[in-house]
Amino acid sequence: MSYVIGLDYGTNSVRCLIVNTANGEEVGTSIYEYESGESGIVLDAGDHNVARQNPSDYIRGIELTIKGAIAEAISQDKSFGADKVIGIGVDTTGSTPMPVTEKGVPLSMLPAYKGNINAMAWLWKDHTSYKEAARITELAAAHRPEYLAKCGGIYSSEWFFSKIWHCLNVDQQVFMGAYTWVEYCDWITAVLSGTDVTPDKMVRSRCAAGHKAFYNEQWGGLPDKEFLAMLDPRLADLRDRLYDTTAAVDSEAGKLTKEWAHKLGLPAGIPIAVAAFDCHLGAIGAGVAPGTMVKVIGTSTCDIMVADSKSELADIPGVCGIVDGSVLPGYFGIEAGQSAVGDIFNWFVNYIQPGGKEDGSHVSLTKKAAGLKPGQSGLLALDWNNGNRTILVDQLLTGLLLGQTLHTRPEEIYLALVEATAFGALTIINRIEEYGVKIKEVVNCGGIAEKNPMVMQIYADICNREMKVSRSAQTCALGSAIAAAVVAGAYKDFSSAQKAMSGVKDVVYKPNPANVKVYARLYKLYKQLHDGFGVAGNTISMAGVMKELLDIKRQANQ
Amino acid sequence: MSYVIGLDYGTNSVRCLIVNTANGEEVGTSIYEYESGESGIVLDAGDHNVARQNPSDYIRGIELTIKGAIAEAISQDKSFGADKVIGIGVDTTGSTPMPVTEKGVPLSMLPAYKGNINAMAWLWKDHTSYKEAARITELAAAHRPEYLAKCGGIYSSEWFFSKIWHCLNVDQQVFMGAYTWVEYCDWITAVLSGTDVTPDKMVRSRCAAGHKAFYNEQWGGLPDKEFLAMLDPRLADLRDRLYDTTAAVDSEAGKLTKEWAHKLGLPAGIPIAVAAFDCHLGAIGAGVAPGTMVKVIGTSTCDIMVADSKSELADIPGVCGIVDGSVLPGYFGIEAGQSAVGDIFNWFVNYIQPGGKEDGSHVSLTKKAAGLKPGQSGLLALDWNNGNRTILVDQLLTGLLLGQTLHTRPEEIYLALVEATAFGALTIINRIEEYGVKIKEVVNCGGIAEKNPMVMQIYADICNREMKVSRSAQTCALGSAIAAAVVAGAYKDFSSAQKAMSGVKDVVYKPNPANVKVYARLYKLYKQLHDGFGVAGNTISMAGVMKELLDIKRQANQ
Repeated sequence: MSYVIGLDYGTNSVRCLIVNTANGEEVGTSIYEYESGESGIVLDAGDHNVARQNPSDYIRGIELTIKGAIAEAISQDKSFGADKVIGIGVDTTGSTPMPVTEKGVPLSMLPAYKGNINAMAWLWKDHTSYKEAARITELAAAHRPEYLAKCGGIYSSEWFFSKIWHCLNVDQQVFMGAYTWVEYCDWITAVLSGTDVTPDKMVRSRCAAGHKAFYNEQWGGLPDKEFLAMLDPRLADLRDRLYDTTAAVDSEAGKLTKEWAHKLGLPAGIPIAVAAFDCHLGAIGAGVAPGTMVKVIGTSTCDIMVADSKSELADIPGVCGIVDGSVLPGYFGIEAGQSAVGDIFNWFVNYIQPGGKEDGSHVSLTKKAAGLKPGQSGLLALDWNNGNRTILVDQLLTGLLLGQTLHTRPEEIYLALVEATAFGALTIINRIEEYGVKIKEVVNCGGIAEKNPMVMQIYADICNREMKVSRSAQTCALGSAIAAAVVAGAYKDFSSAQKAMSGVKDVVYKPNPANVKVYARLYKLYKQLHDGFGVAGNTISMAGVMKELLDIKRQANQ
Repeated sequence: MSYVIGLDYGTNSVRCLIVNTANGEEVGTSIYEYESGESGIVLDAGDHNVARQNPSDYIRGIELTIKGAIAEAISQDKSFGADKVIGIGVDTTGSTPMPVTEKGVPLSMLPAYKGNINAMAWLWKDHTSYKEAARITELAAAHRPEYLAKCGGIYSSEWFFSKIWHCLNVDQQVFMGAYTWVEYCDWITAVLSGTDVTPDKMVRSRCAAGHKAFYNEQWGGLPDKEFLAMLDPRLADLRDRLYDTTAAVDSEAGKLTKEWAHKLGLPAGIPIAVAAFDCHLGAIGAGVAPGTMVKVIGTSTCDIMVADSKSELADIPGVCGIVDGSVLPGYFGIEAGQSAVGDIFNWFVNYIQPGGKEDGSHVSLTKKAAGLKPGQSGLLALDWNNGNRTILVDQLLTGLLLGQTLHTRPEEIYLALVEATAFGALTIINRIEEYGVKIKEVVNCGGIAEKNPMVMQIYADICNREMKVSRSAQTCALGSAIAAAVVAGAYKDFSSAQKAMSGVKDVVYKPNPANVKVYARLYKLYKQLHDGFGVAGNTISMAGVMKELLDIKRQANQ
């Protein structure tokens, strides 16, 4: 009888999950909400692009959640004992790089940088570096087209080098004060295992490097110094203090130090699996395999697929990357996603608060929206309140709502926002299939998939596909735990570990043919707005959009 | 010492104003909120185009408000006595036609039609007849282009014949059950003076007929029977039961009956001025004269100008009409307008209720919005939640909001809605000036102009013109009272009556040059959306709109 720990660092909190390696039973869990900023995110009122985090919150989260989960496991499972934990896996958001000293101390923890948000972790959804991202895309298109081909054709402001370069441009004190920059997924495993952050010692995640930092063995790892020098010579210098090798999640990042073992009450020396981004491990926790798309629906959404590394795979424009071993060893990991999904619903509920806190809650709005037929509101929205990650890869896009009358009600807007995210999801599915990757099954996970059947039914109706839901409510943490089980030797490979430890729920959301028909009409309009507002140089007539929406509305009301 | 009464029938309530003829002093007032439907409007949950009213509310309003105003006048002005009232003027919304019996009884008051909303008054903002309106426009364009030229080129679903024809198409029982149809402005004066509703007896308003029913002496009054027969032969038959002559507000519609005089405590036989639409009399109350645009800003907005009847005046595409004598006798009345202004703000406050009733009130949102700089929110809206009256004359347009992020706050949306209505106002001003009518002065009236300095300042900044505000808070009712004063012989003409009884406030909103500059950039984008979404056949690129908005936002935040 053995157990593994999965640590899942999300946007607003970190959770710990303790899992029985034999059957995937989740015996203990605990959550820590980050204390800094607004819901854990340090914002700047003058610039909505800013999103930083305090690395101290990450550290506090390790101790609080592991201890909490152990306590719960002890009370819930008589067979459990902390001494039976055989490994730890870690996932985090990303790309979330942070500047650190030669000893791996985040600059933000040094008194000299107190109050300087540039010394913190640059959260994945920080979009301040959109200019640098555009310039990197431009330079890569001209000089290293192979780099771009593997990340969908456009380098994002959410990614590693954009952020570091922006820091160099706006805050030289921080850039020059940092020995190097690390993705915090790598930093967490380094902290747990006491590994030095110097390039030759610290184990770096293939997932983070490949999807966000142009890392590919095909061209010798990270971008070459000549290319980085085109950005700034100081970035070329930095390359020497970054890394040359990476590892997939079946590798060990290190072993738990005595100090941490003592503090947490765990056996010292148990292996720490190499980290990956939350959604990539979420995909593992949800049972990803060739032909299965795993949608990790949270504040944003990550869509993950895998394809045999030995297969011929076309580059897919607009996806966030195709990286060998970024999800499962031996497979290309394909990552796509939407910059905001739950965050859009949260915006409406928390910022707009229609009707006040009670009437404007997710529960109340969902209840009222569930009574509406597709098309009945006459509304149509774009899901771009946080830009568009796939397929446009453009953070400088914003939200749009169309079709309001003097009678439009909050639940109609809420529904339109849900539908918009589903239209966005369909656009991604279509793009991936257009490039030859067949999607036979969609498995959803995350809180929304878990808790909101209306949203799942709309996704089924709009995508005209069955929507399955992962059995675990904590798929990312489960994925990390599965990685720990493999690294600790409980299973010989991921496939057998997934078979034993993960699965989908019995309930499957099936498309309703009548709704599918209405949504097909609405999707044409969505695509018209999407391509008209989203694609530079496009000239698409909008003259009929409002009238077509009213026509759909009339028919829905008949 | 003499007094006059102005009755002002608005969209949600009727008010009575008692005015001293010598100096315009308002000595008594009273309001009655219509009891039927939602805020006085009978709606249909399945069709947002429906807006009807209960004529019983109109009648109840006469007695309650006149008695209430008299009581207030007695308590406030020692010189006042009900016996000193020398005349009554009436204004109403319109086109608001209703089906009546041969004796002038609204069908809705007959037991046989109980519960049938088609038997009620068809409120100006009822848009159910958009198809009929489009067909009338089509037929007139082909066969009677002169009709269209006088009403801006498009016949609206808000107007007389569209509504009656739609009733004929959807409810023959009501159409066939009605002897004739009357604008309720004419019906009120007929009720007060006991005038029969037969065509030869009832005095019809030039304003209502000319702006909404294609009435023009140039072609012998109403549309000819041959034309109406193209719509439906039964409409050609109806013409015999309509009217051939009309009168301006300097004429008498009749004299107060003994019954009403007794009921109200007023002298019997005092003259009732011919009625007009609220905004036309509002324009008089605000001091309209050649070169002055009066904006009556309410749930919707009416823009009224006058030009000498002897001058050469071009037809202006998109305005609601150019009618000789519709405002002041001896002048062309030019009417333009926006289908919703206050109604859009009310929609946001009452339907969306951001943050709940308190946080989402007009006062709270205005206070927070007043702290924002132009362009700072990154938002842009179209003011089409109730369609577009001028210059597009298209009720099948809907609202649009653009530029939302995950941080967009309610006050930013509120501000964007206010700005959208101001951009709509500027579009009207530009159109009228393009056709040779110089606007030297803008006088605003209505509750919003009165109570919301932020809105007025934004109108000044966006239109880059000074905004003046009418001295009276009840300009429409004052205009009706002025008409009563002229008809009763207190003044020889409107010019002298206006000079004595109306005026503007001392405060004048002057454009702020810095804001003017930002708004000029935003207006370009508004016009791009306006022409792109609003004009059939237009193909205008939207690809840069979101980025330009973000650029304006960045500069505003610097």
